[in-house]
Amino acid sequence: MQFHSDNAASVHPRVWQAMQAADTMDMGYDSDALTARLDEAFSELFGVPCGVLWVATGTAANCLALTSMVPPEGGVVCHRKAHIEADEGGAPGFYLHGAKLMLVDGEHAKIAPQAIAALIDQIRDDVHRVQPHAVSITQASEDGCVYRPEELRALSTFCEERELGLHMDGARFANAVAFLGCAPREACQGADALSFGFVKNGAMNAEAIVFFDPEKAHRVRYLRKRAGHLQSKGRFLAAQILALIEDDLWLDNARKANATALQVGCNAADRLLHPIEANEIFLRLSANEKAELRKRGFGFHDWGENVARIVTAWNTREEDVAALARAVADL
Amino acid sequence: MQFHSDNAASVHPRVWQAMQAADTMDMGYDSDALTARLDEAFSELFGVPCGVLWVATGTAANCLALTSMVPPEGGVVCHRKAHIEADEGGAPGFYLHGAKLMLVDGEHAKIAPQAIAALIDQIRDDVHRVQPHAVSITQASEDGCVYRPEELRALSTFCEERELGLHMDGARFANAVAFLGCAPREACQGADALSFGFVKNGAMNAEAIVFFDPEKAHRVRYLRKRAGHLQSKGRFLAAQILALIEDDLWLDNARKANATALQVGCNAADRLLHPIEANEIFLRLSANEKAELRKRGFGFHDWGENVARIVTAWNTREEDVAALARAVADL
Amino acid sequence: MQFHSDNAASVHPRVWQAMQAADTMDMGYDSDALTARLDEAFSELFGVPCGVLWVATGTAANCLALTSMVPPEGGVVCHRKAHIEADEGGAPGFYLHGAKLMLVDGEHAKIAPQAIAALIDQIRDDVHRVQPHAVSITQASEDGCVYRPEELRALSTFCEERELGLHMDGARFANAVAFLGCAPREACQGADALSFGFVKNGAMNAEAIVFFDPEKAHRVRYLRKRAGHLQSKGRFLAAQILALIEDDLWLDNARKANATALQVGCNAADRLLHPIEANEIFLRLSANEKAELRKRGFGFHDWGENVARIVTAWNTREEDVAALARAVADL
Amino acid sequence: MQFHSDNAASVHPRVWQAMQAADTMDMGYDSDALTARLDEAFSELFGVPCGVLWVATGTAANCLALTSMVPPEGGVVCHRKAHIEADEGGAPGFYLHGAKLMLVDGEHAKIAPQAIAALIDQIRDDVHRVQPHAVSITQASEDGCVYRPEELRALSTFCEERELGLHMDGARFANAVAFLGCAPREACQGADALSFGFVKNGAMNAEAIVFFDPEKAHRVRYLRKRAGHLQSKGRFLAAQILALIEDDLWLDNARKANATALQVGCNAADRLLHPIEANEIFLRLSANEKAELRKRGFGFHDWGENVARIVTAWNTREEDVAALARAVADL
Repeated sequence: MQFHSDNAASVHPRVWQAMQAADTMDMGYDSDALTARLDEAFSELFGVPCGVLWVATGTAANCLALTSMVPPEGGVVCHRKAHIEADEGGAPGFYLHGAKLMLVDGEHAKIAPQAIAALIDQIRDDVHRVQPHAVSITQASEDGCVYRPEELRALSTFCEERELGLHMDGARFANAVAFLGCAPREACQGADALSFGFVKNGAMNAEAIVFFDPEKAHRVRYLRKRAGHLQSKGRFLAAQILALIEDDLWLDNARKANATALQVGCNAADRLLHPIEANEIFLRLSANEKAELRKRGFGFHDWGENVARIVTAWNTREEDVAALARAVADL
Repeated sequence: MQFHSDNAASVHPRVWQAMQAADTMDMGYDSDALTARLDEAFSELFGVPCGVLWVATGTAANCLALTSMVPPEGGVVCHRKAHIEADEGGAPGFYLHGAKLMLVDGEHAKIAPQAIAALIDQIRDDVHRVQPHAVSITQASEDGCVYRPEELRALSTFCEERELGLHMDGARFANAVAFLGCAPREACQGADALSFGFVKNGAMNAEAIVFFDPEKAHRVRYLRKRAGHLQSKGRFLAAQILALIEDDLWLDNARKANATALQVGCNAADRLLHPIEANEIFLRLSANEKAELRKRGFGFHDWGENVARIVTAWNTREEDVAALARAVADL
Repeated sequence: MQFHSDNAASVHPRVWQAMQAADTMDMGYDSDALTARLDEAFSELFGVPCGVLWVATGTAANCLALTSMVPPEGGVVCHRKAHIEADEGGAPGFYLHGAKLMLVDGEHAKIAPQAIAALIDQIRDDVHRVQPHAVSITQASEDGCVYRPEELRALSTFCEERELGLHMDGARFANAVAFLGCAPREACQGADALSFGFVKNGAMNAEAIVFFDPEKAHRVRYLRKRAGHLQSKGRFLAAQILALIEDDLWLDNARKANATALQVGCNAADRLLHPIEANEIFLRLSANEKAELRKRGFGFHDWGENVARIVTAWNTREEDVAALARAVADL
Repeated sequence: MQFHSDNAASVHPRVWQAMQAADTMDMGYDSDALTARLDEAFSELFGVPCGVLWVATGTAANCLALTSMVPPEGGVVCHRKAHIEADEGGAPGFYLHGAKLMLVDGEHAKIAPQAIAALIDQIRDDVHRVQPHAVSITQASEDGCVYRPEELRALSTFCEERELGLHMDGARFANAVAFLGCAPREACQGADALSFGFVKNGAMNAEAIVFFDPEKAHRVRYLRKRAGHLQSKGRFLAAQILALIEDDLWLDNARKANATALQVGCNAADRLLHPIEANEIFLRLSANEKAELRKRGFGFHDWGENVARIVTAWNTREEDVAALARAVADL
């Protein structure tokens, strides 16, 4: 009964099928027939022209997306809890050749134009200070919360006014769209580039970098190769992605994960640090309470002292969730 | 009848099986049970203690291996045709933060101590010149030829004397071992790190970086993460690698590829640019001759004017090879 | 009556003389007779063996010093107001290839072991988090305050325990030593490397990077060249430095600057944000008050709203200081 | 009687005067009155609008100039003997974040469009190969030879057609203009950026980066700071440069150096490796002959076996030159 993370969940059967169907000889790298379909498939999904690259990890997706917005001497505004700041081992510093992450705070790990303005208005535009070039937000956020379309509109208007790029880390974008019930582009509106996560949603090792200005994808193809992320059997990554976005499998999977998360939380409202809007639950639990749950066979990560993070996935079993909800209620 | 490259060949059935067997929930990143077995499995294979990391591509393997030997201000001696120089989109410059590749020539894309000495003896040790820190060789070479154990002994002795690290790009290491019929460590003796290729040998997207000083692996784990190469479902990479090295599947596959390569070349001795020692054949063919072969349904890459590269793989079909051999003989 | 900064003050006459005396032909780069004396001169000054390199700017000195402690994947703990964080245009990110600055707070821009511990104790040692490799402190601090020997002892003990390098940005190290009245090494005790500033203290464009483990200087010589900081007429930089450290000119200059700073502040105790321990005064002044001072001919920088920074130098004129002190008292 | 290099020659008296005249308090960094005159002074000199930055070294000038043309994933074509390739300790790799130098050959260390085309026409435009983004040439060349205006026209036309930037390393640009007797812009026509050297021509430590599209200078100002090359007393660098370009002092100095070089070479035509077009002479001399000259008190660098490099400067004494010419004739 593992609730550690959705990032190690099983691969969806339809993804397996798609991968196996891709196992016939084809051209190498990104010259295969499946990869060739990506731009169109995402353009259709989002209703606007897209340029799309696959990579194997979210870290690579985030960093490569940011290369299209941030020069080595520039800065990226993000939440203090952002994955690029806290969990990627300094990858943005590597990919952006020393560019700087500029941290802001915000409730539920979301950031607002006001917080960004408060930070960057202090930065005199002279050569002694690193200048901001982009904003990166996470949808759903590191606290499992979701930006509403109107919040995104405010952010993207702000970024346009300040001539800042807007990047969205969508490691759990599917969960956010499932929560919002809106069109996919509404859930990332104004973003110049989206790291569209599939690994947490039934894929094995494929994420998509979606550029809403398709020309921006061009240079990043060179950078992907230069970073060692151009797999020679890239067709298997394209296959995973296509399997998930076709017939809305990505949304079905996300809906299941979101639903089970809600179920875990429904009896624990007073323990919740953040509203459950995606598939992560942050529970106030004492050391003893955590130990008790673990004794009963539930696996999860500590999230600082007295907090536990519970994550559900597309394949979290109903009975495990029910058991966990009961166990929490019993504490 | 594709002979473009082994790098896009199908995945071996036993690799598929191993991957599917790995599809139960496990801990993320490199904390899974399969990854935990790698160090021991390779230590056994090579008969010396090894520290092993998986990555998805040979480019990442080569570059991460080199980070353990070459500081940003240093240089790496390699053959002018080396993959790191000619085919990785500048990845070593990225991973090594601007370190320099120092090019030497050598027949059949192999390099000898004399050639290295001729180059580096000219480099005065002062701060105006980039100083060499390592040598990188490819086994089997970019011309499909294999370093003999005595050649490797000479190289590693030379590197030791000059205090140079020795890296081996083993994208087709299996083919080299199959050709030599020696113990695996003999085929890479003296190397400090080996990029052990599996993708061209039946894997989907897993290569191993083998450090023969296991402590060297420690820092590279951080660099792998920082490069976005730490997959969260890493167990699938470990599974591929273990499936291939257990029961000598890697060698069986390489032997098949080597054997079919020989078959293609057996009637074309006068057209060969290099002896066939692995699974690549470089044939002198005029534009008309190439066109003729393509008309008959054979796919392959041009390798400069009047040369064609033919590559066989673990799953190259006997009948295709026979047809190609006949077609070449008929020209 | 300029009190903007000591960084643009005139060059001391004895520095001019030394530079002119150096204007005979000599060997280029750092092969001249003056540069050859640096190691010994500083070893004598500090009473311990030193390896010393000149560079033209404090930014280059800080960043090159840090290269000896921090790998690209690492982090440097510093105060939020540290020059390397706030005023160097991201230079540490460039020189350290993307390493991360980790910010702590502390009164008067000084940092204490407790603050560092509070930050780094949260950083789990795994590859997902950037690991701290060094601490950088500024002596005198960005608020014009001075670390006492016992504070430095505590910091260096802490760094040793945690295996962290200790770097000191000594842009105003002379002012700190003048304030403490101690031996130079006491004022930087435990530091592995010191950026010893001379530009603010009568030099034209020469700073010294002092390594207290002389072997550490070796690699940095290569990095200095690689950064374009090895001047071909380096003898002029060595000349400036030697002129200042010989006969204690550096201390005399610093004492004068410190003394005039105290004089400015003596009638303004209630306006001081920080004790005056070096040559910088931070005064609470309203916009109107600032305007009044400027109308009377005093030049200085705004330091946020309602604060002005006043800096004295080795050549600040007594009458200007007296006038400024009166003007402040008159407000 | 030193003929090692012009790079360590004395500072011209008028440069000293200008520096001393600059020694009054002024604003720091590049906000002083002298720096403010640079753009106009160079625009007048070249007859086209220029954006100009000072830096202390030619290495910094070359590398910062190239940042305006070459992204990290790109390449720079240059001569195998180019200073950026052979003598800058890998600085381009550092400043360009791993971009690649692509080497061509050419008589007298000059390169021609045909040689560049031969190299880059082999580079397939795909992500596996580093793509060329700029060409860098040296005027006068590393062999002391000068590109004629028609050669530059051919090069710049070629670069335009291929969408390559054109950089000129003008460490001895003055000597080239003095030789050509043409307008300065003719001697660098078509170049997008020029590293205009002054250090070898009477300055102490100031070079100018001249951008012929003034907008290109903007971003490089940030990069100069980030590289630690923004000196706080920058007025002293501006002073040096202005002293040299005003009243044609730069040309007078170069003419003197060129004239003495010719004098050295006039009796040694059969020993010359390259025509003497600037202030460098490359003489075939056996080890015995070198020893003989050194015994007589002449200092110079070996330039490979059996070759000596003799360099004259603005202040080379007539009698020393006469003595050297005689000594060579006597051999």
